[in-house]
Amino acid sequence: MNETIEAALAANAARIEAALEAFLPKGDGYEAALHEAMRYASLGGGKRIRPFLVMETAGLFGVDEACALRVACAIELVHCYSLVHDDLPAMDDDDLRRGRPTVHKAFDEATAILAGDALLTRAFEILSQPLTHGDAGVRADLVLALAIASGAEGMCGGQMMDLAAEGQDLDIGEITRLQRLKTGALIGFAAQSGAILGKAPAHMRHTLVAFAHDLGLAFQIADDLIDVEGSAVDAGKATGKDQARGKATFVSILGVERARAQAQLLADQAARHLDMFDSKADRLRRLARWVVQRRN
Amino acid sequence: MNETIEAALAANAARIEAALEAFLPKGDGYEAALHEAMRYASLGGGKRIRPFLVMETAGLFGVDEACALRVACAIELVHCYSLVHDDLPAMDDDDLRRGRPTVHKAFDEATAILAGDALLTRAFEILSQPLTHGDAGVRADLVLALAIASGAEGMCGGQMMDLAAEGQDLDIGEITRLQRLKTGALIGFAAQSGAILGKAPAHMRHTLVAFAHDLGLAFQIADDLIDVEGSAVDAGKATGKDQARGKATFVSILGVERARAQAQLLADQAARHLDMFDSKADRLRRLARWVVQRRN
Repeated sequence: MNETIEAALAANAARIEAALEAFLPKGDGYEAALHEAMRYASLGGGKRIRPFLVMETAGLFGVDEACALRVACAIELVHCYSLVHDDLPAMDDDDLRRGRPTVHKAFDEATAILAGDALLTRAFEILSQPLTHGDAGVRADLVLALAIASGAEGMCGGQMMDLAAEGQDLDIGEITRLQRLKTGALIGFAAQSGAILGKAPAHMRHTLVAFAHDLGLAFQIADDLIDVEGSAVDAGKATGKDQARGKATFVSILGVERARAQAQLLADQAARHLDMFDSKADRLRRLARWVVQRRN
Repeated sequence: MNETIEAALAANAARIEAALEAFLPKGDGYEAALHEAMRYASLGGGKRIRPFLVMETAGLFGVDEACALRVACAIELVHCYSLVHDDLPAMDDDDLRRGRPTVHKAFDEATAILAGDALLTRAFEILSQPLTHGDAGVRADLVLALAIASGAEGMCGGQMMDLAAEGQDLDIGEITRLQRLKTGALIGFAAQSGAILGKAPAHMRHTLVAFAHDLGLAFQIADDLIDVEGSAVDAGKATGKDQARGKATFVSILGVERARAQAQLLADQAARHLDMFDSKADRLRRLARWVVQRRN
């Protein structure tokens, strides 16, 4: 397998794009703008890291690819909804995302709020449909794990912490907890969803969660470094915003050099969690290396 | 059974209030405001009509009350989330709800958006938990039906129509479709959830949906009449707003007298759908009568 991780991610992204297309509504009438906004928010971009984690971990357990693809799309819709709501003026107030106007800029605030709501809802619809898995117990488990990862004690809780902590002096423990909730919980669900689909033993599920936690933190620290060091052109979004807003980040607490070393350490540790899966997990190992080297 | 419908609704509301209490998070730390806002949005008021429909239809099929109560709470959380988001400045911009400041007034807009998101997510969490039903197929069916009722082709689609149709001349067909999506879909799910829990035959499920459609429209027309005729003190929210905003309603299209007659006709029709359930459905029949007589 000499394929680069960039090529694997690109092939995965193309596949996810096509599958998402089919999952999104396309109505006319007065609600047409909602459907357009849902499509705008979900299609045409993104690295599709979470879907990649689903497809790769499902591959470890020989899960039917059509089932894994549905779960991958559901998780990506949740990620996209979170970006739409986080970008709103009342939240992070961002005008640019993936090099394009954010949803509330391209449409309006009301449509953006509703599009986010409907994307989240669609994710649960996809997971609960019989095509996602023949065993209803697996479907219910997927719904439950996604709800926990994305709700008040997961992603929503993390975003609330992020807003509430603006201008506060967080310590390294607090910023780690914040990121575990805000981004780590959904990444953790993506990485364990393959194990849920494959009805893998609990210790393998836990191993994949541990992998995802280290990967997610490494990813976040790398994001913070891009925010400090990157250009808006490379990043596809405004940079330097965290500092301007007085937001504590791994970089503001640790400094650039220690943050970079910490990200590398976490990426190495993430890869080591995969030892039990031998060469089947090579693409996931490459992902862990890539996460700390990327420029956007 | 000489109990009045008001007494039955009050007893149900007290039970729902206590059950919701237990389903809502209560954290400290930076995310505490999110949890408080979720509680503020869900507790301390509301007629709890949708939970009443769940409890009563579940009773028709001898469903375990503890299971029905969980579903009733999940649906009420979705209803509460929709109110929080609909009240936002970018949407209907309401300051008052159930006689109290709306969530974005009592907290702030960001917290209101997140609280809505987290309430919706919590609903799916509750439905998918094993305690909701011993058969995972039933849990997955509940999740699927709720997602369809509340998503882009249900409640969210209806709210989008409502916003997009402001200042437009809707005809009676369009306003009926708008209300079927915006409020009818979730009421329809509430009324059929008892049949899903009880694994009732499909024709009974369809009958309860038909009941709910007529009930929901009657309820909406009565709401429009209250908006035109009621006082803010009785209604517990601002009245006269639809007209001020140029919103088409059943009353603006039909006039007060024809709207009142139509509501009564729908309520009668709703009750007739229940014939197959004999006296077990008496409370639901009383509900249909009450819906068009209430003043708030």
